[in-house]
Amino acid sequence: MFIHMLKDQLGNEKVSQNETALFACSHDESPHQAVEPEVVCFPESREDIEKILEIARTYHVPVTSFGAGSGLEGQAIPIQRGIVIHFEKMNKVVDFSPEDMTITVQPGLTRKSLNKIVNRHGLIFPVDPGADATIGGMAATNASGTTAVRYGAMRDQTLDLEVVLADGKVIHTGTRAKKSSSGYNLTGLFTGSEGTLGIITEVTLKLHGIPEHTLMARCTFDDIETCAAAAQTILLSGISVMRMELVDATSIAQVNAYGAYDYPVHHTLFFEFAGMKAAVEEESVLAKELLHDLGCRDWEVATDPAKQKEVWRTRHELSYAFTHVKGMRDTGADVCVPISRLPELVSYARELIEESGLTGGVLGHIGDGNFHTIVLFNPKVEGEQERAMYTNDALAMRAIEVGGTCTGEHGVGLGKMKFQKAEHGEAVEVMKNMKQMLDPEGILNPGKMFE
Amino acid sequence: MFIHMLKDQLGNEKVSQNETALFACSHDESPHQAVEPEVVCFPESREDIEKILEIARTYHVPVTSFGAGSGLEGQAIPIQRGIVIHFEKMNKVVDFSPEDMTITVQPGLTRKSLNKIVNRHGLIFPVDPGADATIGGMAATNASGTTAVRYGAMRDQTLDLEVVLADGKVIHTGTRAKKSSSGYNLTGLFTGSEGTLGIITEVTLKLHGIPEHTLMARCTFDDIETCAAAAQTILLSGISVMRMELVDATSIAQVNAYGAYDYPVHHTLFFEFAGMKAAVEEESVLAKELLHDLGCRDWEVATDPAKQKEVWRTRHELSYAFTHVKGMRDTGADVCVPISRLPELVSYARELIEESGLTGGVLGHIGDGNFHTIVLFNPKVEGEQERAMYTNDALAMRAIEVGGTCTGEHGVGLGKMKFQKAEHGEAVEVMKNMKQMLDPEGILNPGKMFE
Repeated sequence: MFIHMLKDQLGNEKVSQNETALFACSHDESPHQAVEPEVVCFPESREDIEKILEIARTYHVPVTSFGAGSGLEGQAIPIQRGIVIHFEKMNKVVDFSPEDMTITVQPGLTRKSLNKIVNRHGLIFPVDPGADATIGGMAATNASGTTAVRYGAMRDQTLDLEVVLADGKVIHTGTRAKKSSSGYNLTGLFTGSEGTLGIITEVTLKLHGIPEHTLMARCTFDDIETCAAAAQTILLSGISVMRMELVDATSIAQVNAYGAYDYPVHHTLFFEFAGMKAAVEEESVLAKELLHDLGCRDWEVATDPAKQKEVWRTRHELSYAFTHVKGMRDTGADVCVPISRLPELVSYARELIEESGLTGGVLGHIGDGNFHTIVLFNPKVEGEQERAMYTNDALAMRAIEVGGTCTGEHGVGLGKMKFQKAEHGEAVEVMKNMKQMLDPEGILNPGKMFE
Repeated sequence: MFIHMLKDQLGNEKVSQNETALFACSHDESPHQAVEPEVVCFPESREDIEKILEIARTYHVPVTSFGAGSGLEGQAIPIQRGIVIHFEKMNKVVDFSPEDMTITVQPGLTRKSLNKIVNRHGLIFPVDPGADATIGGMAATNASGTTAVRYGAMRDQTLDLEVVLADGKVIHTGTRAKKSSSGYNLTGLFTGSEGTLGIITEVTLKLHGIPEHTLMARCTFDDIETCAAAAQTILLSGISVMRMELVDATSIAQVNAYGAYDYPVHHTLFFEFAGMKAAVEEESVLAKELLHDLGCRDWEVATDPAKQKEVWRTRHELSYAFTHVKGMRDTGADVCVPISRLPELVSYARELIEESGLTGGVLGHIGDGNFHTIVLFNPKVEGEQERAMYTNDALAMRAIEVGGTCTGEHGVGLGKMKFQKAEHGEAVEVMKNMKQMLDPEGILNPGKMFE
C-alpha cells in the first residue's frame, strides 16, 4: 500500500523495486549483514522527500538514507527494511559563492565532484575520508580523514543544513555567516546524527583557498612509540601540517607484497606540508630536524606530483593491498585517543592482531590521535570473523578507558552501538530523549546508534 | 526558606545576601536593566552546584550563572531574581596535559589566567574576546573575537563539557579525543546555550603552539567597500592571518581625540600574521602587494613588541575611547554576514548611525564577516537610548535578510531574543522543545534566549 502511495505521489520513475536497486541499497563497505529494503526512492527535490516522509508517517514505515554506500559501520543498511531514500538524483549545486568561500549543495553530490567544481575557482573543500563519499553521507557521519589535523571534521566545515524532520517540518540549522552565537547549535547536532533525527536535503559548506605549494615527505622509525612521539613533537612545534599519517611495518610489508615494491619494512610516517612556498620549505626543514633528533631514518621529500605520488604510494595503496586478498574480507577499528595515549593504544592494537592469529595492519591519522586497524578474515572459516571483530571491540573499549572515543570518524551505525553507554554514560539518556523528541514514531533509520 | 536551605547545605560562607554581592551580580557590561538576585552562591565544586540545583528544583527558584560579568547581552542578569551562581571560587585547573595539548578547567578561570598557565609550556588558548572573560562564560555564549578568523569560536575549541542538568544528572558531552563521530554532538549544543540547558562545571579545551614569530601591520583605504574587498582578497589568497580587523574613520577620529594622537583619519585595516618566521615574512609581503593593488595607503609593519603595540593602538584603544566619554553609555550591534555582503552592511551601519544623530563607530573582525557598531548615548537625554538601540535592531534584521546572523559572538541573552524567529524560523520550535525537555520546570536562566 505505501509503495503504491509512493508511486502515486512521486511518479513511477522515482520509485523502484528493481532487484538491482534493492541490492545496491542493502549494504555498505562494512561486513555488517546486508538487508534489502522493500522499495528504493530516487527523489529529485526536498518536496519529494517531504512526500516520502508523509507516507512513511502515515504507514509507519522505516526510512533510511543512502549516499555512495561507502560507509563502514552499516549506517545506510535498512535493517528494518521499508523505504530507502537514494540520493543519486539530488546531486546539484544549489548556490556557489566563491567570493564568500561557501557552497550549498544537495546531499547526493560526491566530494570529488564538488572539488571539480570549486577547484576551478582556486578553492578546495578539504575534508577527505578517502572514499568518494556523498556530502550528505559525510555530514550524516561527521566524516573526516587525512586532512582533519588541519581542517577538522565535517562538523567544523558545515555552516548550515536544510533538514526535513520526521513530523514534516523543514528547518535550517544555521546561516551562511562564518560564525554565530544565535540559538542552540543544531548544525552540530544534525551533523553526525546518521539520518536518525531528520533527512538532510541541503548542506552549506566552508571552502578554502588551494594552498600555493605542496610538499610530501616520508620517514621511518623502529618503534611505534617513537612515531607517536614524533607526531606530538611536530604538533607542538606549531607546524601546521596538511596531513600526517602513520602506516605500521606490517602494512608496509603487505603493500610491498601486493605491489612488488621494496619499501623499507619499518613503521612509517607520511607528511604533507601545504601553504605558501617559503613556509612549506621552512616547515619541512624544521620537521626533518625534529624527526632526526628522534632517530628517524629514510627521510624522503618530493615536490613534483609524480614523485609525491611515489613517496605516498604505500599509504595510498594500503587499503587496496589488504582488501584485495582473494576470498578475504576485512574489518577495522576507528579509535581516537588523546595523543599521549597513542603509543600504548597502537601497541595494544598490534598485540590484539597478533593474538587473533589473523593478518592485519595499523594505520592512522596520527595527528588527531585517530587510527585504524585493518584485519583480514576469511568469512568461510569458522571463528575468523568473530576474532577479527573482537580486535575492534577490545580496542574501542580501551580507547574509551583512556579518555578517547570508540569512533573517530566512521560513526556509530550498527558496530559502535554497544559502546555508547560506556563512552557517553548518562549523556546517552539525553541523546535518546532527543531522538524520542524529534522522531517519536521511530521511522528515521531505526535500530541505529542506540540499543 | 530556600536561602536557609542553601546555607544549610553549602555552609554560610558560600551563600551571600550582602549588598555588594547582590549588586555585582545584577548587571553585565551591556545597558540592559540591572536586576539583583535574592541570593548569591559561591560554589567550590560540582557537588555544591548539584546541591544548589536540588534546592532550586524543590523550591522552584530560578538559577542564573555569573562569570566575569563581561557579557554584552544581559545573559548573566537574573531577571527573575532567585539564585545567582557566582563562579569566582571555581577557578582551578582540573587537568593540564601539555603533551595532549588539552586542558580541563573549572568555569570560573579567566582566559588570561589560563594563558598564564599554558604559555609557560609553549602553548596558547587563542580565543580572544577582548575582555578577560571566564572560560565558563565564554563557553556559555560561544564567544570568539579577533582570532576567530584562524581558530574559530569556543565551539571549535571545546572538546568536552561537564554539565549538571536541571534534573540533577551529571553528564560529559565529549571526550579528550580531538575528534569523534560517536553519539549526538552535545558539546556544541551546550556551548552557546547561555546557562539555559544546564550548568557547566568543567570545560576541556584544545590548546595550540605559540607561533614562533608575529608581525603586525596596518593600512588605510578611502572607502569601506574596498576594506571588505581587501579582506576577501587576503582570505582567498590562502594567507592564514591570525587577526584581521577593521576600524572605520569615525572611530579613528575618536581615538585621536581621546588619546591626542594623529593617525590618518581613514578606514583602517589591522593585520596580525603569526607562524614560522619565513612564512610570516612571505605572507606579509604578499599581503602588502595584494593590498597595494587595491589602492591601500599608509602601510606600516612592526615586528618588535613596542612598535606592534603602536601599530595596533587605535584598534586597542577604540572601545575605551568611546566608552569613556563622560556621562555617556554605549551599545552596539554584533552582526555576522557572508563576506560578500560586508560592504553593503558596513555602509548601512554607517547610514544608521548618521541618521540616529548619535556618535558611533564601526569596527569588526572583518575576516569572519563579523562586525560591531559602538553607538554612544546619554541615558539622561530622552530618546537617545532608543535611537541607539534602533541602530542595533535595524542592523540585526538586515544581517538576517542577507543570510547572516543577528549575533556573531555576543550571544542572544535579552537583546537578541526578538530576532530568533526571524533568524531560525521553524528551528526555534526545535530549540524550545529542547529547552522544555532539559529544563521542564524552567529554572535555568529563565526569560533568556526565547520569548
